[in-house]
Order: sequence, then C-alpha cells, then structure tokens
Amino acid sequence: MNERDALRMLAIDVPHAGDDAAVVDDLVITTDMLHERTDFPAGTTRYTAGWRAVGASLSDVAAMGARATAAVAVYADEGFDPHELQRFVCGASEVCAAVDAEYVGGDLDVHSEFTTATTAVGDVTDAGPVLRSGASIGEALCVTGEWGRSAAALRLFERDTVESVERANDLFRFTPRVADGVALAPHATAMMDSSDGLARSLHQLAEASGVGFTLDREAVPVHPAVDGVAADADERFELATTFGEDFELVCTVPEDRLHDARAACPAGLTRIGSVVADEEGVTVDGEALPDAGYTHG
Amino acid sequence: MNERDALRMLAIDVPHAGDDAAVVDDLVITTDMLHERTDFPAGTTRYTAGWRAVGASLSDVAAMGARATAAVAVYADEGFDPHELQRFVCGASEVCAAVDAEYVGGDLDVHSEFTTATTAVGDVTDAGPVLRSGASIGEALCVTGEWGRSAAALRLFERDTVESVERANDLFRFTPRVADGVALAPHATAMMDSSDGLARSLHQLAEASGVGFTLDREAVPVHPAVDGVAADADERFELATTFGEDFELVCTVPEDRLHDARAACPAGLTRIGSVVADEEGVTVDGEALPDAGYTHG
Repeated sequence: MNERDALRMLAIDVPHAGDDAAVVDDLVITTDMLHERTDFPAGTTRYTAGWRAVGASLSDVAAMGARATAAVAVYADEGFDPHELQRFVCGASEVCAAVDAEYVGGDLDVHSEFTTATTAVGDVTDAGPVLRSGASIGEALCVTGEWGRSAAALRLFERDTVESVERANDLFRFTPRVADGVALAPHATAMMDSSDGLARSLHQLAEASGVGFTLDREAVPVHPAVDGVAADADERFELATTFGEDFELVCTVPEDRLHDARAACPAGLTRIGSVVADEEGVTVDGEALPDAGYTHG
Repeated sequence: MNERDALRMLAIDVPHAGDDAAVVDDLVITTDMLHERTDFPAGTTRYTAGWRAVGASLSDVAAMGARATAAVAVYADEGFDPHELQRFVCGASEVCAAVDAEYVGGDLDVHSEFTTATTAVGDVTDAGPVLRSGASIGEALCVTGEWGRSAAALRLFERDTVESVERANDLFRFTPRVADGVALAPHATAMMDSSDGLARSLHQLAEASGVGFTLDREAVPVHPAVDGVAADADERFELATTFGEDFELVCTVPEDRLHDARAACPAGLTRIGSVVADEEGVTVDGEALPDAGYTHG
C-alpha cells in the first residue's frame, strides 16, 4: 500500500482528513514528519531544518487560506546536542516570526535518525477555508512565487562546496505563503500547496475538483536558481514542475477576480493555465502532463 | 545533555514552553512522539497504540485544565499495512470520542521503527489555564484516579499469554482526564499530568512552584491490577509511584475548595498529602521520596 492509497483510506475513516489541513470549527490544524534520510540532504543545518520543517506545516495552513497562529515541533535525534537543538529552535522560531505566528515549543525524543514532527494551527478567515474541491471550468489556474527552488537547492547541496551548501541552505528556507493564502481566500475557489511538486499537485487538485487543467509551459514561473543547475530547457521545466517541496500555492480563481487576487498577493500570482473539463486531463501545451513527482515514502 | 536539561533549554528560548502544553491566546497545544522500542511493548495492538499515543497528548491538554477539541497524528512504519493503519486510526478516534474531542487525521511517514507523533489542541476555560507554578504552602496535594496501571500492564505484556496481553492492552487504554482537568480548573492552584510517574511529577511540580510536599504513603490510591503483579507492599508502592505513564492528574487545591473539587471529579480525587516549604523537600511518611522515575530518552 503506498502513501496515497493509505491517505485515501484515512480520509474515508476520518471525515476531516484529505485536504492540506483539517478544519475543526474555525481552527485549522496540520501535522507532518520529516527525517534526515529523505528530507534533509547532507549539509542542511539544524537552523535550516527547523525553519523548513515548521515551514512545511505553516504552508499547509496557508493552503487553507487560514491565518497561522502557532506551531510546535518534536525534535528527535541520537542525543540532545545543545547547540544543534538551539539552532533548530531558532530556525523554527524565525519561520514562525516570518508569518506572524508563534513557535511555542514541543517535545524531545531519541531516534537513531534525526526526525522531526511539526504541527501548525491557524484561524480560518471570514472567507472560510479554501478546499481542494471548488475549481470550476473556465477559471484561471494560478501559482504563487517561483518554482524549482528546492530542486536547485538539492543540486547545490550535492556540489558540496562551502558556497554551494550555504546557498542551498538559503534556498531551503522558504517563506510559507501564509500572507498570500489569506489574501487569496476571498478569491480562490480551490487551493493547495505544492509539497509534491507542481505536476502531482495539479493532478491532486484536478481529482478533488473533478476537472482538468490546460497549462502554458512558458507561463510557469521558474526560480532563477534553476538556471544555474539545469542543463537545458527541458530539464529546467522538469526541475520546476516535478521535484516538489517548493511550498508555493496552486489555486483556481474566477476570471473576474483575477485582477484583485493578483494585486493582493505579496509573493506574486501568475496565471499558468485554465480549468477545463475532467475528460481533458492535465495537459501542458496540448500534451499530457504525467502525474509524476515526489511520493513521500 | 539529558532530556530534562534540553527541555529546560527549550524553555529558556521559547517563553511558552515548559508546562504540559503551550498556551496561545485561549488555545492550548501539545505534541509528543512515541515509538515501538521504548513506548509500545511487544503485544501492544495498533488499536491500543493509537488510543494511547493520542491519549497522551489529550492528557497534556487535561493537565492545563483545558477542554480538548481535536487531535492529529503522524503514523510512521516500514510500510502502510492497511489493517494496522485502520486499527491505529480507530484507537485514535475512540480516545478522542471518550473525551468529546475530534480525531481529524494526520500524516504518514516511512520509518524502520513504528513511530507516532501526536498533537492535541484544546480551549482554555473561563477559569484560565492551570500552570505548574501556583502551589502554596498549606494546600492539599491531590491526585485523580488510581496509580500503577501502566506498570501492571507492562508486567502482563511480559507474561505473554493471550489473556495477559489482552488485559495489558485494556490497561494501556486509559481515559485522559479531560473532564477532571476542566472540573479542577476553578479549584486547582497548580496541576500537571503524571507522564513520568508520581515521584518525578511531584519533584517537577515542587520545583515549578518553589514548594515541598509531604505525602502519606497509605493515601496513594493504587490500581487493583498492581496487586496481581507486585511481590510485596514495597514493590506495590514503587510500581504505583515511579513507573510512570499513568496519565493521571496531580494537583494542589486550597483546603476550603477541596470538597467542591472532589465532588466535581468524575475519576475521583484523593488527597495524598500537603504542600510544605521548599526546604522540606518531597517526603513520604517523613522520609525523602527520591526524584526517580521514567526519563524519556
């Protein structure tokens, strides 16, 4: 059983599961686990790890169009090196501060592999939570920010020089799109964050809304760091769309709200395509975009 | 660096950490990680594991005198066996239902060892959160329920018969004292749950409040299951006070509120001693009670 099937099963048993975060009254809550082997390449500092792990949960709050209020983390390692722990706490606190939330501590555990479990909570705005299921044919398909940031970081971690690793850590410390999520809440009809990459996210959003998407390849905003690591235009597009973990928002917006939505987004909002009928699937410049990307586990 | 020193350091950096749960406005939030090797003896079903792990977080909400509203969990294992996962979700949902909270799903991760990270949130009542720091000399020292339940369960798991393991699983599925915590909130001056055992909890509560405690050994309510596993009276007392993970509440109550507090507690409230001056330390029948118990990690 793979993760997607297991998550589907969880969603059947637990009515609130299945979106980026669960909604309980006006509260959203979301939890994630990350560990060294799969999520933190060699060279990732504990400051970056704390920032990124807590940031991933804050990104899920953002994806619901909710205001992030607080986050907690469990820090598990072979021992409790005070400096490493302090760096982790510092990164966790900084990313919370970046989105006006509070880091309020957590728990410690012993593990042979560095592992962290993070939880973030937030308040739904008056616009209500934005689910994955509300896209309608004819609406604009949009994304925040620029894509391929984490893919570029991974390549830079692999180069293993002092400069490349420092730059990779910078790229790994993304700003969760909480301000954008709140700004988009009154406009977006469906929204999610892109933890598994643009391609996979689009397939998930299409499935949840019962629609298809048509994309303009040239319109996808690619992060400038990708240019330094991609061999050609095809690889550039692939790194930006299938690697994942960019933690940008993907959303659908009715045409007549597009201007207001764009104006409200601090990270920038780019239209990359349109919502089409389910039967048309997810295509880019007329060709099928495979459901490829990062599958956790 | 051991866990207690590390937690102290976390508390220095993060102003809200250090109590059983963090308080953000009127919300309390708490997170824990448990794993197979240290927390789930052989024979623990996934239903029991889901119940117990989520229950441990709900117990922290209870310890603040807050109303539990929701919980999430990360489920990490080598693979996603659908039946085991379903049993875990079922246990997690049941323990939430037992305290009128909602289990709202979570995340999945791959780990070589079965590991779960749970988070619970709750609402502070009008009485406000009950911290560990409010005990005053002369007040009554009280506990909910009966003690030694988890110690007895561990012995029964070790016996490894069908009946003993089934009974051990029953004992492991405790009811988090949320109703008692809410009932005690207007009366208790300091409160915590007993994840590390009664002895250690009393030393922690004493340190946080800057007081000492004097206990009457005969007054400590021992769970009947302990009688079946303890060799003599000394072992009986030790199992009830140092093993830990009973998830009962320990609190201090002014003498004149004791009657009302007792009447309000569904799990029963027993006075086991009194608050004394810091210099007197923690004693039982006049002898020092060592700061011994379960240290996580």
